[in-house]
Amino acid sequence: MTSRELVVLGTASQVPTRTRNHNGYLLRWDGEAILFDPGEGTQRQLTYAGVAASSITRICVTHFHGDHCLGLPGVLARIALDGARHTVHLYVPAGALAYAERLLQASITRRPATVVLHPVAEDGPVDVVAGATLNAARLDHGPDTFGWQLVEPDGRRMLPERLAAAGVAGPVVGELQRTGAVVVGGREVRLEDVSTPRPGQRFGFVMDTRVCEGAERLAERADLLVSESTFLSADADLADRYQHLTARQAARIAAAAGVRRLVLTHFSQRYDDPEQYAAEARPEHGDVVVARDLDVVPVPARAMFPTV
Amino acid sequence: MTSRELVVLGTASQVPTRTRNHNGYLLRWDGEAILFDPGEGTQRQLTYAGVAASSITRICVTHFHGDHCLGLPGVLARIALDGARHTVHLYVPAGALAYAERLLQASITRRPATVVLHPVAEDGPVDVVAGATLNAARLDHGPDTFGWQLVEPDGRRMLPERLAAAGVAGPVVGELQRTGAVVVGGREVRLEDVSTPRPGQRFGFVMDTRVCEGAERLAERADLLVSESTFLSADADLADRYQHLTARQAARIAAAAGVRRLVLTHFSQRYDDPEQYAAEARPEHGDVVVARDLDVVPVPARAMFPTV
Repeated sequence: MTSRELVVLGTASQVPTRTRNHNGYLLRWDGEAILFDPGEGTQRQLTYAGVAASSITRICVTHFHGDHCLGLPGVLARIALDGARHTVHLYVPAGALAYAERLLQASITRRPATVVLHPVAEDGPVDVVAGATLNAARLDHGPDTFGWQLVEPDGRRMLPERLAAAGVAGPVVGELQRTGAVVVGGREVRLEDVSTPRPGQRFGFVMDTRVCEGAERLAERADLLVSESTFLSADADLADRYQHLTARQAARIAAAAGVRRLVLTHFSQRYDDPEQYAAEARPEHGDVVVARDLDVVPVPARAMFPTV
Repeated sequence: MTSRELVVLGTASQVPTRTRNHNGYLLRWDGEAILFDPGEGTQRQLTYAGVAASSITRICVTHFHGDHCLGLPGVLARIALDGARHTVHLYVPAGALAYAERLLQASITRRPATVVLHPVAEDGPVDVVAGATLNAARLDHGPDTFGWQLVEPDGRRMLPERLAAAGVAGPVVGELQRTGAVVVGGREVRLEDVSTPRPGQRFGFVMDTRVCEGAERLAERADLLVSESTFLSADADLADRYQHLTARQAARIAAAAGVRRLVLTHFSQRYDDPEQYAAEARPEHGDVVVARDLDVVPVPARAMFPTV
């Protein structure tokens, strides 16, 4: 398995600051690089982060407020300019399709990227990405808004000492993984005899929203959850009015859903010290990262089921 | 007269670098703030430059390649968000009107800025800005492209000692300026007796283009000329193929047109050292600024006609 990690490109809600660009989150997941919510300036943030735009294979947009989408044309132009030959899959709320289409023709390009647009109109599976299922779930924000979730199916981890004892080696291992059983030296070896269940990994992306069932569903058992956390509890009334989460609400959703690592982001400019978000979230959840621009956050090492 | 100066927001051609953002140039001219070619990220560059987006009164776009226009929706959103109540005038090539219209509806905004769109289809005067004429002239680039020029009419500078000698003081000075003559103590005093001609100031904005008549016209007698200078002469063939200027060509246009101060910008990433542009331009023109992001370049002090 190649590395699975989140590259944080921007963390500001609504307006950029000197230290925080608009939103932008790149998930490296095996051979894929999935960009979430490219706000204005994401193209340049990729340069600062040392990420080649041409590595991006998919882009998911939660909604079309400017801080979540205005970097889209620049990123797509850059993907093509840097010589990428692959198709880029773009997932957007169906209700905002007109915005996506305008952004796809926002400037004159000699050679546009090849984009397949996937409008999403309802909750559920949307695509298969590197063997994992990309799910969407509706969130509770003003405009048509969907959060995203990547769910790798559970699999099995091969146990080398048991394989050796059973005399299974070389290409026969692959055959056993595909078929579930092989015959070696006249004896049947079953997959479950020489392997242990391996839970699939999960990634969740929740923004912008009030507390809602969709957010809870996207967070469910996530190894890594990125969640908006615009406000502090002292301003819970503003969070409700503008349809956002507080840091405490985000952490409670994560804790209830069994999230392993929680990345808070999408910070309002009204608070000086981002440690205030951490102080509010940490009593609720044990592994909270208050994101800074250009942070790289690993997906936690794969969880283990008890060995058989 | 309030200060007239150029705030450089970005200087990179095509793609941003760690030190150079996409294009963006703000001209402060009396009570106006005119933004030229807002590339992606201009909104954040305004923050770095300490410029309030709400001060922007007009936006001129030369053409709709992404590095000259993708910052437009972010800037307009920010102008409204920061509470500006004034109308923003947006000047664009008529042939690119559809791009402008898409960018004006690129994202969902609670309260959009009030924009008056001025599509420009031919050379000549377009508007009057703080008493100066805004002219457009077609340039020689791929898409429909217009450069811009601001021309303040010539006026007269009052000479205090002659006013005193003629007994002209107080509100009578204004009357003299408006009417051209007043009678003081039974004697007629004519404006030309107590003042000297004062040349109007000019600003020119040339990008992107090959050498062409439009560029020469926009440069004519400019106190401050901003000119693209994508290539060095060693790559003059590339400049011609991609319809751009070399630093030497830009400097020669400026010298022939009697430009007082030349600001070079829109630099290709193929050259490491921007001093190469200066080395090529300075033998051709005596006041060359190789622009860096966030530079503030004053319009040179008003030229003088010889005193009568």
